[in-house]
Amino acid sequence: MPNLTEFRVKPIGVIHTPFTDKAQTPIQATRSDAAGAVDVEPAYADGLQDLEGFSHIILIYLFHQSEGYSLRVKPFLDDRLRGLFATRYPARPNPIGLSVVRLTARKGIRLEIEGVDMLDGTPLLDIKPYVAEFDVRTGTRTGWYENRSVR
Amino acid sequence: MPNLTEFRVKPIGVIHTPFTDKAQTPIQATRSDAAGAVDVEPAYADGLQDLEGFSHIILIYLFHQSEGYSLRVKPFLDDRLRGLFATRYPARPNPIGLSVVRLTARKGIRLEIEGVDMLDGTPLLDIKPYVAEFDVRTGTRTGWYENRSVR
Repeated sequence: MPNLTEFRVKPIGVIHTPFTDKAQTPIQATRSDAAGAVDVEPAYADGLQDLEGFSHIILIYLFHQSEGYSLRVKPFLDDRLRGLFATRYPARPNPIGLSVVRLTARKGIRLEIEGVDMLDGTPLLDIKPYVAEFDVRTGTRTGWYENRSVR
Repeated sequence: MPNLTEFRVKPIGVIHTPFTDKAQTPIQATRSDAAGAVDVEPAYADGLQDLEGFSHIILIYLFHQSEGYSLRVKPFLDDRLRGLFATRYPARPNPIGLSVVRLTARKGIRLEIEGVDMLDGTPLLDIKPYVAEFDVRTGTRTGWYENRSVR
């Protein structure tokens, strides 16, 4: 199998949120009203132009407080063991997180955001604009999630 | 600024698609009907359980043929320079791609998928289930994309 060599990623900024304790961090951005901010490294400032035209952005980041992983986990919203890749559980072989947040303002290299569900100090890897035409799927089946034990 | 040290990621599998030429690769999964497959490393097989209950999955992968980046780029669907992070352009500081694809079958460690928009041999970093309740946003503003030059 090709291409299984290691790659390096380097954070381009940091995500600030009110959450310093995993147990009090919201499960998923859609379950959060909390405000936060992204501080992007000044070297990347020019790359932020035009972002303010978008109401929502996708943040790709590191679950920096996750160590190790299990291939079968109990999701936060269920009480049965599930395959890790069928969950959004943070401890993963590559601990990469993904959240869609509201972008309320851009002030230079600072992005003001709402609906944060990550820990304070989370290292940011990438920002992408959320584009409904690319990112919305309807009529989806969601397996165990539809019959989960926790609502 | 904390947490700006490098991290290592290691592919967990590879994505097979019909596309070997960047110029003929679809722009975004929603513009593709092409079938492909994901081969996950056998070591991660147990993590794939329950995935078949989901009709759509999020693939997180490396844009392995991107080298370097510019902070202002012309998106594929526009003719003006835009801030890189306001685009889905593949050449990025961390060349991490994100596509939502249809999962049509799981056969052991092979996932059969549809709607692929990445190059053949793309290194896979993570698989997450697509959950409308987490991933769908409605009433979004999409900046330059709404007034783009190419439809």
